[in-house]
Amino acid sequence: MTAKVRILGLDPGLARLGFGAIMVEDDRPKPLDFGIIQTPAKQPIGDRLQTIYEDLHALCEQFSPELVVVEKLFFYRMSNLISVAQARGVILLVLAQHRLPLVELTPGQVKQSLTGYGNASKLEVQEAVARELDLDEIPKPDDAADALAVAIAGSFFASS
Amino acid sequence: MTAKVRILGLDPGLARLGFGAIMVEDDRPKPLDFGIIQTPAKQPIGDRLQTIYEDLHALCEQFSPELVVVEKLFFYRMSNLISVAQARGVILLVLAQHRLPLVELTPGQVKQSLTGYGNASKLEVQEAVARELDLDEIPKPDDAADALAVAIAGSFFASS
Repeated sequence: MTAKVRILGLDPGLARLGFGAIMVEDDRPKPLDFGIIQTPAKQPIGDRLQTIYEDLHALCEQFSPELVVVEKLFFYRMSNLISVAQARGVILLVLAQHRLPLVELTPGQVKQSLTGYGNASKLEVQEAVARELDLDEIPKPDDAADALAVAIAGSFFASS
Repeated sequence: MTAKVRILGLDPGLARLGFGAIMVEDDRPKPLDFGIIQTPAKQPIGDRLQTIYEDLHALCEQFSPELVVVEKLFFYRMSNLISVAQARGVILLVLAQHRLPLVELTPGQVKQSLTGYGNASKLEVQEAVARELDLDEIPKPDDAADALAVAIAGSFFASS
């Protein structure tokens, strides 16, 4: 891995898609930006996917990441699984259109990377995110903190 | 429903996406074209979704359908469900980008519309497709015949 790498972490979802952009310099991750792409449940599904399509294109242009890390689908409720997978299809499309290298990690791999064990609680992972990024507080909202965790875990995988 | 309506039926899938375009004139459906969008399993998922994105855009421009009918996800195996749902996310995105009205039907609704009962066999549905469209043979491949069935069922729903 080169000295400086920009990584974009994504926590896929239809209602809330978390993103976390970090810069890794000499193996130390620093936060660039984080937040969520929100789509209102009252809109038609196609319009919501179009919002994700446009906003994710904008994020890719804004951060020009060298690597994108996406959390794999795992143990969702059935109804939720379909909408998350549909959103994830659009995410993978946009990343292919930008020709961005993609790493997919399971929730267990993210937890293992951040805390040392795969069954860590959400709070333990979020505290590890704040510690790794040298932040005084846990990043909000939860989906953005999750996306930062995914990005940091991706940096470990990429450099190992 | 006006006298002439162009309807595009889609049978979502990642490896094979069936499409069937029909023209309905005075409640009589006629086939315009049918076939499949194929994506090779050896390609990265993002590239396969990009093929679906481009080819479906081309189909929408070619047929300018007044209505698109998509089969709802139903009773798939788990691994297949995720890839079909990801492809379906891209399909719904493209239809939204073309601002096309969308009807979603369950497999049961399609079978019911074509044969009169919801538990009809695949062959019974395909024979009904050939009969409705006045074709000497069952359209091939299966995914294209399924998509034509979806389009015909959509025409019944739209006109009822």
